[in-house]
Amino acid sequence: MKTTIIGLGLIGGSIAIDLRKASVATELVGIDRNVDHAKRAVELGIVDKIEAEDKALSTSDLIITAIPVNAMCQLLPGLLDAIKPGAVVIDAGSTKRLLCKSVEHHTKRKQFVAAHPIAGTENSGPEAAFSGLFKDKTNIICEKEKSSPQALSVATLVFESLGMNTIFMEPEEHDKHVAYVSHLSHVSSFLLGQTVLDIERDEKNIFALAGSGFASTVRLAKSSPDMWAPIFEQNAEYLSQALLEYIMHLQKFQYHLMKRDVKELHNVMTSANRIREILNGIEHKQTKQVVEKIK
Amino acid sequence: MKTTIIGLGLIGGSIAIDLRKASVATELVGIDRNVDHAKRAVELGIVDKIEAEDKALSTSDLIITAIPVNAMCQLLPGLLDAIKPGAVVIDAGSTKRLLCKSVEHHTKRKQFVAAHPIAGTENSGPEAAFSGLFKDKTNIICEKEKSSPQALSVATLVFESLGMNTIFMEPEEHDKHVAYVSHLSHVSSFLLGQTVLDIERDEKNIFALAGSGFASTVRLAKSSPDMWAPIFEQNAEYLSQALLEYIMHLQKFQYHLMKRDVKELHNVMTSANRIREILNGIEHKQTKQVVEKIK
Repeated sequence: MKTTIIGLGLIGGSIAIDLRKASVATELVGIDRNVDHAKRAVELGIVDKIEAEDKALSTSDLIITAIPVNAMCQLLPGLLDAIKPGAVVIDAGSTKRLLCKSVEHHTKRKQFVAAHPIAGTENSGPEAAFSGLFKDKTNIICEKEKSSPQALSVATLVFESLGMNTIFMEPEEHDKHVAYVSHLSHVSSFLLGQTVLDIERDEKNIFALAGSGFASTVRLAKSSPDMWAPIFEQNAEYLSQALLEYIMHLQKFQYHLMKRDVKELHNVMTSANRIREILNGIEHKQTKQVVEKIK
Repeated sequence: MKTTIIGLGLIGGSIAIDLRKASVATELVGIDRNVDHAKRAVELGIVDKIEAEDKALSTSDLIITAIPVNAMCQLLPGLLDAIKPGAVVIDAGSTKRLLCKSVEHHTKRKQFVAAHPIAGTENSGPEAAFSGLFKDKTNIICEKEKSSPQALSVATLVFESLGMNTIFMEPEEHDKHVAYVSHLSHVSSFLLGQTVLDIERDEKNIFALAGSGFASTVRLAKSSPDMWAPIFEQNAEYLSQALLEYIMHLQKFQYHLMKRDVKELHNVMTSANRIREILNGIEHKQTKQVVEKIK
């Protein structure tokens, strides 16, 4: 299939690499507003070439978009207008409610698959892309019934080639769950980094005193603001709920702390320890991946 | 030196392993209230044997304590009473203010070195101990001037054998810095885990939707409540300040979010991105360690 990837960063680049490997994409065209990224993606062999948007869209069988979610909402209706009959558009963004809404009445809605392959690192740009990023991770498809069987079968081929397990959710449900399980982690990490930078004006102190625990907790604070600001904006309602819950837990903890209620602090931590089993499962998935990489 | 380790968990066990390797400890005695841990430490060869506390204390040249910080405050005065002349006691706990206060007028204060070797994992018990845990990490010694030159030289030998860089701080200063750089990370992680567990009652959802970012951010939520509850209690004032700062940042972020002030969200994240250089330094230290391990 002639495949066009719009957005040649960590996500788009990693998808391109694995679709070529699986021979799903026989011809790979890249599009990126950032001229340096586009050039670099060709140099790295992630895509074969850069084409003008009109030409790429009117001749591709498959178009995958991996750009900031606000840009995507603006782009999608016109993009569907420009594709050829039978072509399939798959989006890989982290919010789904507003995007699905932007094309709900579009005549070519059935050629579009709203997906969210959940994977990433704190790095960005084509240099950050690598094969295997999505392996054994979860992909979510929203409004399955609004995509044609043909579009869904192309999407299935794509996500199976990436090694992903696909589940189905409604856009509202998707945005709500990821607010808690993904977006809140990012906010907590950004602001933990900010708090420590604010207080420890002498950065040498942070460096000397920080163990691997601190590094792990603030790792996501390295993430790209260009990518995350639009995600947070689009998911503001659910993320705000999640933040309120988190703040409430922190305030309760502080209250127990000020009362020196050690028993209650202990209870809270013991209860949070239940996360261990879930994390062990996630780490098991990751180790499996590393072992397979080494093989 | 005949060396007694009190507390045979991750910290005490890892110290024992490396002191034997460096031939600093020629005879290793273990003491642990937890009979299973004590037995297991002997089985694993971490210590040579278990002795009665009186006998161990009155015959050892070096005593290292790695037990919960509240138990340590109760233990230390009597422990100093029981040691032989010239013996050195080193504590490895995560808070220093109350501990130093507990022996400020003790006649044997100069035989004691108040230290905090900053290292750890989210695991606990003798099984979690390993060689190299402390390598290239920072050790803090408090109230250096209250320890005898001989006690300090033994401590220097110990921490150099572990591969650590030692810096000096006053107890108040120590407790304040670690509140931000270490203790706050743990609280944020415990409560992020708790928030997500609270909302996502179906744990399968967390498992399916959580990427490696979530896993990294909540890793510390697996830590031992028995160890952390006393640390939080002893550092309640400074930790509470740190928590308030963090909560304030989270609330401001939520305010910008509700106002859809994307520019301000972007600014906050860009500012937090400065943590990247510090983390890159920490990760560089860790990679160096892994590479040396493989060699």
